[in-house]
Amino acid sequence: MELKHVVIVGGGFAGLNAAKVLGNKKGVKVTLIDRRNHHLFQPLLYQVATAGLNPAEIAAPIRCILADKKNITVLQGEVTNVDLEQRQVFTEFGEFSYDYLILACGSKHSYFGNEKWEKDAPGLKTLEQATEIRRRILMAFEEAERVTDRNQQKQLLTFVIVGGGPTGVEMAGSISEMSRFTLERNFRNIDPKLTRVILVEAGTRILSSFSQSQSSKAMRDLETLGVQVWTSSPVTGVDADGVQIGKERIQANTVLWAAGVQASTLGKTLGVETDKQGRIVVAPDLSLTEHPEVFAAGDQAHFSDENSNPLPGLAPVALQQGRFIAKNIINELEGKQRVLFKYRDKGQMATIGRSKAVAEFKKLRVSGFIAWMGWLLIHVYYLTGLKNRIFVLMQWAWAYWTFRKGARLIMNREWRQHRVSRSSDSIPS
Amino acid sequence: MELKHVVIVGGGFAGLNAAKVLGNKKGVKVTLIDRRNHHLFQPLLYQVATAGLNPAEIAAPIRCILADKKNITVLQGEVTNVDLEQRQVFTEFGEFSYDYLILACGSKHSYFGNEKWEKDAPGLKTLEQATEIRRRILMAFEEAERVTDRNQQKQLLTFVIVGGGPTGVEMAGSISEMSRFTLERNFRNIDPKLTRVILVEAGTRILSSFSQSQSSKAMRDLETLGVQVWTSSPVTGVDADGVQIGKERIQANTVLWAAGVQASTLGKTLGVETDKQGRIVVAPDLSLTEHPEVFAAGDQAHFSDENSNPLPGLAPVALQQGRFIAKNIINELEGKQRVLFKYRDKGQMATIGRSKAVAEFKKLRVSGFIAWMGWLLIHVYYLTGLKNRIFVLMQWAWAYWTFRKGARLIMNREWRQHRVSRSSDSIPS
Repeated sequence: MELKHVVIVGGGFAGLNAAKVLGNKKGVKVTLIDRRNHHLFQPLLYQVATAGLNPAEIAAPIRCILADKKNITVLQGEVTNVDLEQRQVFTEFGEFSYDYLILACGSKHSYFGNEKWEKDAPGLKTLEQATEIRRRILMAFEEAERVTDRNQQKQLLTFVIVGGGPTGVEMAGSISEMSRFTLERNFRNIDPKLTRVILVEAGTRILSSFSQSQSSKAMRDLETLGVQVWTSSPVTGVDADGVQIGKERIQANTVLWAAGVQASTLGKTLGVETDKQGRIVVAPDLSLTEHPEVFAAGDQAHFSDENSNPLPGLAPVALQQGRFIAKNIINELEGKQRVLFKYRDKGQMATIGRSKAVAEFKKLRVSGFIAWMGWLLIHVYYLTGLKNRIFVLMQWAWAYWTFRKGARLIMNREWRQHRVSRSSDSIPS
Repeated sequence: MELKHVVIVGGGFAGLNAAKVLGNKKGVKVTLIDRRNHHLFQPLLYQVATAGLNPAEIAAPIRCILADKKNITVLQGEVTNVDLEQRQVFTEFGEFSYDYLILACGSKHSYFGNEKWEKDAPGLKTLEQATEIRRRILMAFEEAERVTDRNQQKQLLTFVIVGGGPTGVEMAGSISEMSRFTLERNFRNIDPKLTRVILVEAGTRILSSFSQSQSSKAMRDLETLGVQVWTSSPVTGVDADGVQIGKERIQANTVLWAAGVQASTLGKTLGVETDKQGRIVVAPDLSLTEHPEVFAAGDQAHFSDENSNPLPGLAPVALQQGRFIAKNIINELEGKQRVLFKYRDKGQMATIGRSKAVAEFKKLRVSGFIAWMGWLLIHVYYLTGLKNRIFVLMQWAWAYWTFRKGARLIMNREWRQHRVSRSSDSIPS
């Protein structure tokens, strides 16, 4: 019998886990297309941005993860558009016909129509952005050490993080820790402890998806770490020298964006129903109403739970949806009925700093060291690959005992400009 | 008594070791200026380029290495020029007067007047270049998996390394190993084992600084690994599709440059005697004949040994010269006579692949597993920082047992172009 061709667009939590379920299954061949060669473990990306982890420690080559799934071909490249009628996917390197299509292209940052803010306030979604943010943070300290003007120093040592969700909270806590512990004693002209880290949130409280109590606990923990939290402060302007919040103004050389996402643009090109964030509105089985052979998952899908609230853009949602779609396809090929998607709530967590975190699972609320330990173990457990688990654990253990950050590298964006080095290749004396 | 100000330009093996000796010494204050924030362990850079190690594992922040030397200020930035008469160093962020000046700016690649070749044949001197080379190597395999045209595939799977010195040999061996072991089973449309790795050397043999016997041993080892060695093959042209060697032509998408270096351009601006590679010709105490208060070291210095051959551009030379200069400065401040520099030959080594290396120390010649073990231990021993030693050893152990490479990441040069990702920040299910 002829093999059914499943095309998966995107190798994130949704796409990768769909592929894993379809791997080595009879009757299907799979093509997974991603613009990158690696699956990225997004929940730890902020640690790359704040010099805690190396890029390679939270990413793994997709084709390596799926190497043993002989019915899966992994291709790196960009999907340009989809013809739902002809059942074809078009890429920069040719087209593919499919019997089933899984769209899992994820999301990118939204500047709510102010895209021009991005160059002065980068978001954190990719490894490139993480290393660029790391470069900006570390360069700010280097420049502050060089300048003599006090105001200039103050501006260089001011870091504004826009958005009080988990990413914003984790970035703020991590930058503040770096300035207080890691960089201590490293400078002669500045005191890194004078760093101002300001977390700016438009809403009335940070971690708004958490309970009131957990949210205020997180706020107190951040303040203990020296982070200044500004709530009810919608940003009205961003430029190279800082942020504008209505009539208020913060002078800062480093502004980071952790507010708001929008789905990948591919969804909009399909001519199907999308919500205002560009997510594809899916049927209860995650398929497109008009096209039962096409599915959307993760950040690209708008799926409403029983209270008709759309599911949040969280890793567990993407992961469960990816697996679910794959199982449904297999069911169908075996002549079984499709089942409907039900999200098993895994709760949520955010870490604030060493030994500090908040976690909620249904009615259960934990914070402090236990929550932090739980956060740590769960993240290591779900990290892809034994080696990355070992290395990340070692990085954390090292950082915990030495108060040092592992990867304080400033790498320039333009590789060709910087060719001078100091010594050649041989045995060091 | 007034402190003498020593300015060191460059934080490589020469500059860093000079600083270490001057650290916390009475009577001197030191300013070390480097365009980067990190000291780079060049001898292992090829392993970053071939996905064996992470950038942060062979680099350490200079200000962190020197944190406890209270009399040393580390500044990141570019030295634009030097006024030898006024004893001033000019940088992009202001000038510094000095009592002593140590020039240790190292070297960069030389294309022998064909600088236009660089974009198609990058050299390996910085971390940026290493990650760019890694990107090119891995992208070549990704593209080969996508294309159907056999000739195109062949060209994509052909890697030419120009220059048969240690770096060229190590790159060639490492790429060949990756294609044979690491990437095996990762692809569906191509067989990575069909990769052609061609090492092109203008001279009559590779590793010309080694003895004839060691050089031919290395050549046989490379061939066992599947590397094709072309000697007496001076490259006459490089373009996006390959290299020209006189009348011969190799079609290759990836060409890497490991032939010839030239000293940093700063030396030329001083109006002192330089050799044809732009190295400053120094007196027997490594100072400038006209300016005993100015020293040059490492790849930037031309120092002739007793047989009046200039010392090679090796780490041990730079390291010994850096320490020597610092000690001479201290001698002088204590009213003692300056002594003359004598290079203690530490021999040379090159590794070809797993369990394969060649080493020479005076009359002693070692090869195979023992040489490889020696290479490994010496490099770990001289690596900066306990943590990097531990992590590099673990990377190597892991790669040795699993035949896998640790850091197969393709990161784009332009961070802003690539913002799409797949999942948000929270607990993975």
